[in-house]
Amino acid sequence: MPQVRRVLCAALSMCALISVPQAFAEETAPKPRTMDEILAAAPASDWRKPDAQNLLVMQLAQGTVLLELAPDYAPQHSANLRTLAEEGYFDGLTINRSQDNFVVQWGDANGDDQAKRKSLGSAKAALPAEFSTVIRNDLPFTRIPDSDGWAPEVGFSLGFPAARDPATGQQWLAHCYAMVGAGRGNAPDSSNGTELYVVIGQSPRQLDLNITLVGRVLSGMEHLSTLPRSLAAGGFYERPEQRVAIQRLSLASKMPESERPKVEVLRTDSVTFNALIEARRNRADAWYLRKAGHIDLCNVPLPVRNPPESR
Amino acid sequence: MPQVRRVLCAALSMCALISVPQAFAEETAPKPRTMDEILAAAPASDWRKPDAQNLLVMQLAQGTVLLELAPDYAPQHSANLRTLAEEGYFDGLTINRSQDNFVVQWGDANGDDQAKRKSLGSAKAALPAEFSTVIRNDLPFTRIPDSDGWAPEVGFSLGFPAARDPATGQQWLAHCYAMVGAGRGNAPDSSNGTELYVVIGQSPRQLDLNITLVGRVLSGMEHLSTLPRSLAAGGFYERPEQRVAIQRLSLASKMPESERPKVEVLRTDSVTFNALIEARRNRADAWYLRKAGHIDLCNVPLPVRNPPESR
Repeated sequence: MPQVRRVLCAALSMCALISVPQAFAEETAPKPRTMDEILAAAPASDWRKPDAQNLLVMQLAQGTVLLELAPDYAPQHSANLRTLAEEGYFDGLTINRSQDNFVVQWGDANGDDQAKRKSLGSAKAALPAEFSTVIRNDLPFTRIPDSDGWAPEVGFSLGFPAARDPATGQQWLAHCYAMVGAGRGNAPDSSNGTELYVVIGQSPRQLDLNITLVGRVLSGMEHLSTLPRSLAAGGFYERPEQRVAIQRLSLASKMPESERPKVEVLRTDSVTFNALIEARRNRADAWYLRKAGHIDLCNVPLPVRNPPESR
Repeated sequence: MPQVRRVLCAALSMCALISVPQAFAEETAPKPRTMDEILAAAPASDWRKPDAQNLLVMQLAQGTVLLELAPDYAPQHSANLRTLAEEGYFDGLTINRSQDNFVVQWGDANGDDQAKRKSLGSAKAALPAEFSTVIRNDLPFTRIPDSDGWAPEVGFSLGFPAARDPATGQQWLAHCYAMVGAGRGNAPDSSNGTELYVVIGQSPRQLDLNITLVGRVLSGMEHLSTLPRSLAAGGFYERPEQRVAIQRLSLASKMPESERPKVEVLRTDSVTFNALIEARRNRADAWYLRKAGHIDLCNVPLPVRNPPESR
């Protein structure tokens, strides 16, 4: 199995494909680099600090989960989630579902019981569906060169996996690992952000354009992906004691500055990120005997790091 | 979020696409069915009992993991794994790696230390690479109609996700969730089955044709997918006490008949399985507002059940 290691020599087999004198090829052809090498060489400007207004911090006994909202794609759900977090809606609620190779989901276990359910405070009970948005100039789109079976074009936008269709003029977020969405009933406008799920397995892209994605887990995914599975229908825990407590879910901008999580995310419109995509399409690691020459949207890593000053 | 439920009415929007009188359409167009409905109607002959010679039973404190070998694709690795299991090689060894969204891996934690490593008994220390095989008449291939970025043709063969390339004449197994492979070093022929990994996240198809897949976990995946992650390089546990003990790993054919796991697997060359693929390409569930009209290889479920007589 591949291990994290530095590649000390270029993949000579690639040079063999170029019909120019070897000396010339060595001088001009850039050496294929691994992702680690590309990230190590990234200028500071290729990293961004997410806006604290878009960061939700979920505290579990297992550890801290950090989630970045996508207000450019789900403005109303993002606004409602800020209100819910500010007013402590999720504090004391539970993780109620853990379905293997699909999703982990949290919210009010009594949400379907009008008599028992928790008050939404000043948050809205109903929101419009935000499954997609129109293709806009202010929404960058770093397209990957490879085909995708689910959408005409796929790539990354503002740090999130995304897709678009020039024929319909629509652009939307895609259900990759660690993406977070707002659960709904059968009606398209039946989500309000009180019920959230995160993808923990193979990307369920059939959900794209069927439900509102609100953001992505930046760190702490391992606290959610390892929660005990339920084999009951839909992976819902059957007994109340199986549920996992949410100690607190806060909006970072309302936390004291010193307590806010320090994190940096690689810009998906940067030269570094484009180089990373290419490095993953054709692995330079010595372990790989065959380079795929392809990548699926949900196989592209989205690097997150501690800022240099906090290390 | 979608829940398991029966669809009581046909999706009328599909009828609207057919320009024939409504009464005729209702009589002749088959009602779209959900996967549950398709499985409930499957004849007994569409299910198979795996050969006990191909079943490995791994006992952990967490529960039992059942693995089916793929001797038609990896004959030498399968034979070696039978020998290793029969002679108790894995008993008392450990799970040493759990990398989020990638793999869980088990074997001899001292495998790299010639002085400390466990004897292989009569198993072979070196095997040839079994990354692919020639396309043969005795290897059924149920092709899915959708495009795939990693291979010219994808589908299912003998219960496993597979791919093939008519141009090279090669056919191979694909790295989907729950597939199990034999770890290797940088040399293509450096695996022998003593180091096994299972896919626990987004399908890492870049590994296809780079490493030998030996089979698939049929049940008990949740015992592996929820193991605590290591954030160290490659997801390897750093401290010996983090490792998870393998109490026993047995070949089912060598277990007393009464103790062998009872399991049935849906035949991937059956009419039922073909209907299931179509049901997942275009979901009939009332929850889905938009049918994808597509599926990726690794999104197709491979149903496993307890045999009717053991329920």
